Amino acid sequence: MTMTRLATIGLTLSAALSAPLAAKEGMYTPDQLKEISDELRETGLELDPATLADLTSFPMGAVVSLGGCSASFVSPEGLVVTNHHCARGSVQFNSTAENNYLENGFLAATKTDELPAAPGSRVYVTTEVTDVTDAVREGTEGMEPLARYELVEQRRKDIIAGCEEAAGYRCQVSGFFGGAQYKLIKRLEVRDVRLVYAPADSIGKYGGDIDNWQWPRHTGDFAFYRAYVAPDGSAADFGEANVPYKPEHHLKVSAAGVEDGDFVMVAGYPGATSRYTLLAEVENTFDWNYPTFQKLIEEWIATIEEAAPEGSEARVKYESLLAGLNNFEKNLRGQMEGAQRVGLVDRRRAREAALAEWIATDPSRTEYGAAIASLAELSEESAKAARTNFWYGNATRAQLFGVARRLYRLSKERQKPNAERESGYQERDMTFFRQSMEAIDRRYDAGVDKATWILFLTGYLAQPVEERVAELDEAMGFTAETTADDLPELLDAFYAGTTLGDLDTRLALMEASPEDFEASEDPFIKLAVAMYDYGFELETQSKTRAGRSLALRPDYMEAITAWQAEQGVLAYPDANSTLRVTFGNVLGGSPQDGLIYAPFTTLEGITAKDTGEDPFNAPKRQLELIEAGEYGEYKLDAIGSVPVNFLSDLDVTGGNSGSATLNSRGELVGLLFDGTYESINSDWDFDPRTTRSIHVDSRYMLWVMEKVDGAQALIDEMDVVD
Amino acid sequence: MTMTRLATIGLTLSAALSAPLAAKEGMYTPDQLKEISDELRETGLELDPATLADLTSFPMGAVVSLGGCSASFVSPEGLVVTNHHCARGSVQFNSTAENNYLENGFLAATKTDELPAAPGSRVYVTTEVTDVTDAVREGTEGMEPLARYELVEQRRKDIIAGCEEAAGYRCQVSGFFGGAQYKLIKRLEVRDVRLVYAPADSIGKYGGDIDNWQWPRHTGDFAFYRAYVAPDGSAADFGEANVPYKPEHHLKVSAAGVEDGDFVMVAGYPGATSRYTLLAEVENTFDWNYPTFQKLIEEWIATIEEAAPEGSEARVKYESLLAGLNNFEKNLRGQMEGAQRVGLVDRRRAREAALAEWIATDPSRTEYGAAIASLAELSEESAKAARTNFWYGNATRAQLFGVARRLYRLSKERQKPNAERESGYQERDMTFFRQSMEAIDRRYDAGVDKATWILFLTGYLAQPVEERVAELDEAMGFTAETTADDLPELLDAFYAGTTLGDLDTRLALMEASPEDFEASEDPFIKLAVAMYDYGFELETQSKTRAGRSLALRPDYMEAITAWQAEQGVLAYPDANSTLRVTFGNVLGGSPQDGLIYAPFTTLEGITAKDTGEDPFNAPKRQLELIEAGEYGEYKLDAIGSVPVNFLSDLDVTGGNSGSATLNSRGELVGLLFDGTYESINSDWDFDPRTTRSIHVDSRYMLWVMEKVDGAQALIDEMDVVD
Repeated sequence: MTMTRLATIGLTLSAALSAPLAAKEGMYTPDQLKEISDELRETGLELDPATLADLTSFPMGAVVSLGGCSASFVSPEGLVVTNHHCARGSVQFNSTAENNYLENGFLAATKTDELPAAPGSRVYVTTEVTDVTDAVREGTEGMEPLARYELVEQRRKDIIAGCEEAAGYRCQVSGFFGGAQYKLIKRLEVRDVRLVYAPADSIGKYGGDIDNWQWPRHTGDFAFYRAYVAPDGSAADFGEANVPYKPEHHLKVSAAGVEDGDFVMVAGYPGATSRYTLLAEVENTFDWNYPTFQKLIEEWIATIEEAAPEGSEARVKYESLLAGLNNFEKNLRGQMEGAQRVGLVDRRRAREAALAEWIATDPSRTEYGAAIASLAELSEESAKAARTNFWYGNATRAQLFGVARRLYRLSKERQKPNAERESGYQERDMTFFRQSMEAIDRRYDAGVDKATWILFLTGYLAQPVEERVAELDEAMGFTAETTADDLPELLDAFYAGTTLGDLDTRLALMEASPEDFEASEDPFIKLAVAMYDYGFELETQSKTRAGRSLALRPDYMEAITAWQAEQGVLAYPDANSTLRVTFGNVLGGSPQDGLIYAPFTTLEGITAKDTGEDPFNAPKRQLELIEAGEYGEYKLDAIGSVPVNFLSDLDVTGGNSGSATLNSRGELVGLLFDGTYESINSDWDFDPRTTRSIHVDSRYMLWVMEKVDGAQALIDEMDVVD
Repeated sequence: MTMTRLATIGLTLSAALSAPLAAKEGMYTPDQLKEISDELRETGLELDPATLADLTSFPMGAVVSLGGCSASFVSPEGLVVTNHHCARGSVQFNSTAENNYLENGFLAATKTDELPAAPGSRVYVTTEVTDVTDAVREGTEGMEPLARYELVEQRRKDIIAGCEEAAGYRCQVSGFFGGAQYKLIKRLEVRDVRLVYAPADSIGKYGGDIDNWQWPRHTGDFAFYRAYVAPDGSAADFGEANVPYKPEHHLKVSAAGVEDGDFVMVAGYPGATSRYTLLAEVENTFDWNYPTFQKLIEEWIATIEEAAPEGSEARVKYESLLAGLNNFEKNLRGQMEGAQRVGLVDRRRAREAALAEWIATDPSRTEYGAAIASLAELSEESAKAARTNFWYGNATRAQLFGVARRLYRLSKERQKPNAERESGYQERDMTFFRQSMEAIDRRYDAGVDKATWILFLTGYLAQPVEERVAELDEAMGFTAETTADDLPELLDAFYAGTTLGDLDTRLALMEASPEDFEASEDPFIKLAVAMYDYGFELETQSKTRAGRSLALRPDYMEAITAWQAEQGVLAYPDANSTLRVTFGNVLGGSPQDGLIYAPFTTLEGITAKDTGEDPFNAPKRQLELIEAGEYGEYKLDAIGSVPVNFLSDLDVTGGNSGSATLNSRGELVGLLFDGTYESINSDWDFDPRTTRSIHVDSRYMLWVMEKVDGAQALIDEMDVVD
């Protein structure tokens, strides 16, 4: 029935569209592409699909990860393009009241003017991918769940350690298809990353939070880094002597761009999807967790805004968290509305029933059935545990309590040989650990933290005593009579008595022994020590469930894969922050009956939206250029203007931000940076009718660089093609 | 520049559109149509344009006014179709807790089951239109403004009186082109109007206030009345012996409907537009009046909602006012946003400059220039007066004060011969006068009235004493020291001491003498008596300005008309609640860059929008029919469903509601019921890029009647054509 709606668009717009109308579900691993080479060619790919499978040749060799964002090389001199919102932390890090690069933008006149990116900034260049499934899984079949989980984790750590014997590399062992498959990914870890160019927020963040997840969109969400290495080509810390990294491959940048209906693909590092979760988890998430959490986040935001009024010093420290919470809150609403719209729960139930039916038709599939039944049971248990732990998890969000817990845990882990330590507490993790201890200074205010902790503990106290955690009640001194009114005074003792707000204290505690912690009088440390056993027990339960899953989920995924293969569909693994390719077409859409998203926005749309006030405050110079129709060579005739952003039907999610959008020849025609509001739920269930990703157009990038910001030197450095 | 945006749509949708893309400005009087017959034919009219000029032949003879709404005859038995929102008062009037027709809808099984419409409901059938310009204007040239105004008004009243000697007729003398032209319109006043059929609110008001002024839209905004007359065919009050009125003409109803791009026209009674106002008034309205009033209305709404909580008896009395205020507030915001978008003030300034230039090029046009200069001066004065009177006008909004003023004025007017009385106080007005006195009972609550009066007086008191009205201050006992805090006690005396809340008192006072009022101790009457002279003075000033305008505006309109004629454009008079025709095409649009309005919505859009809660609570039966794809013969292949609402580029405004939308052969293909939010400002400045009117599709009307409500007998009564 709702397909009728899609037909509507088809009939209205069909003359303008040569492309198929069903959006393209599938975040494929590069090695899967050979299996769908016919489909790739039919959709419009001109490159040999086989070349896409080789991560070290063109074009995949040019695609890199920033850890959390995607990016790509666009010059032989290590120039990296990504989203403005992926590089904005580095712009902020370098900004001062006198040189506010957020407001004015930043453009290094020469390489020597390039600025160090924010601490922890990395460019990861994948150099090798090896299947290590057997090495990880061998002999784990009959084991007890917890032992299985721990053996698998130990093997992953050992393989990583072996890989990282090569200096300057960062390795990971990623699981695919629920643990059916493991791959070792070896990546050069470029540690000297420099900011080259970022347009002003009034271009790069145009529309701000208001336009976030929205179409129509007019955001110039692009920025440039450069990767630097030691003169010998090895990864090195920031240093004067370092030289630009010379990538083996870089992308050409298209000044011709795409037309409506053109083939596009995106290669990047999507973070996580839940396309194969079972019904119990879906129900728990959408019936309970999301609505509960969404409401709590609204209160959380209000609490921070009250405790840290606009313009206060505290507010500066919480801007980033606030932006994240606002984004998350909108995301949760989108998830819930989307689930409602597609009928997610019913669809998931129907899929499980159909799979069960397929299994029932062939006795050789009986084992699948048993595995799925056990997995469904496990899903129920996980959902129940998530519910039980919800208020406990919130009640322990006080920032310095988290610091105390991590530091105490570190002291415990450091008792073990490095190789056996929990992931996150090994020597290889200490740089980021230290940076996170340092970052507290920029992100913590006792008054705000206390106000939010009161909010969370008030929610915790509102639960029936029998659903609360006795250990926490005891440690906090909560009785059945304790009410929210008692909290301010009770918590005062924590904030008055702690020294964890001091950076030196935190860094010194990275070397402390468990006994040091156990003897400490710091109230947050005392709480961390008191809750250690309970936390360890929760972790053990979680690991045990994960161990059970490791035995069951591969069977489930095998069943799904075989079942889908019978229907001519290639199953792809859920996103896991590894390199994926998704392909499709430039394509508008219809978010609701009677309303159509045009595939492109135009320069004139910026002027029409502009109010002169943040976030709709385009630079005066830009507005004048638009008024004068100074399109240069970047005009798309079909829309009579320079395209700013465009839509496609690609299958992407968070982590894909900054991904190069490639045309049929592998040239960069844009950068992926967002999805429409109606697409948010695609993390759970890809709806081809409404899922649309949003890209900044390469023509707009070049137009801004040439006309607005005078970044001609960078244009010259890149291979710009027509 | 922004035309580029329109070009975008053109290029994207052009294949689907054979129609021109520029929306059709122009609310033409029927006698103007012969002058644009070529354009009518080119746009697609198949009827002879000349037939449209004859108001008493087909199709215009079928078009009627309900006073405030438009409507049309659709059967030889006096069946009248209009908007649901135009007939909803009658549905409400007949509803009881047991028989809630708003909730359940109403369908008379037979004629004897038809219910009397709400008091005051009328069907006006135009029978004759006569040009009376000379009779009204002759010899007024050299007169003093006030005398001119009064002579013109007296002549209008006299002409009306002569016309209404024919029993059962209601006449009006309407001015066109700012008083350059007058027409006597003679209308049969059908007083026995009965409710035949109205779908439930969940169809007829689907989307409610949320969707008001919005596209996409899914409102079944249609309902049916029947006109009854005495057996001899004369107009009569409601009576058993009355028979259905047999109109000379009625419209055929199209089951085939329109396609995207098809010719459509609307004939109806648009209320008022301000397309020819001069700069000073535009500036005052948009820079000051609208923003000030919009803010005040927000407070007004909040005050009522607080004083009359949801579910209270008082709330019932104020629902209608609240709905009106909400609509008005949204309208004002739309006006202001639209003015901003089109640059209304600059455009009006530019138009005046261009007109001045045209006048300057030819010495014979000098008189135009002088008239326009004087008119501009008058506009300044009117704007200033509006500003001065703003807070005084608000301060006197107390409902019973209004009652007292009107009753006291009536006693004064009744001292004069009927023919000389002020319009609104003549014998012909007494039915409506009495009904308005009766209506107070259903719309007045002392607590709510007091709360709102406090709000308005608080605003009044906040003005500098020298800008306040000394007479009001004295009558209210306000001094320079009086503050808002004093108001509750001060006003208590009014509400405690008045008897005007009693209907019998009000009706009795319709017969009272001025002396009775002047001797009254009723605080509202005392206030009315005290303010009479000041009010009379304000009225005299206003009439004097109107008298000046009567001498100047015809010259201005003559200049505009000649100037536009040179550019090949036929000037049309501002809307004045008289019959107008506007024509154009079924056409989607683009409210902003990157976003497109599809021209049709579908049945499936109802299901997608439905939440099960008012105002998105379609009847279960309807949702089932949609789910089952039961389209009957009403499917539009191009959209694969039954079209619910459609867009066109017609030029309409309030008062047009209920107008029949006609196809090229004069068949009814829908009913106009709204405009898009972006169209609101077209009252001041028609923007062809964004002005779109919203129609309910005849196919949806017939589908609801046949499939959902079982109104087959009505379908059979109409001439339904393919």
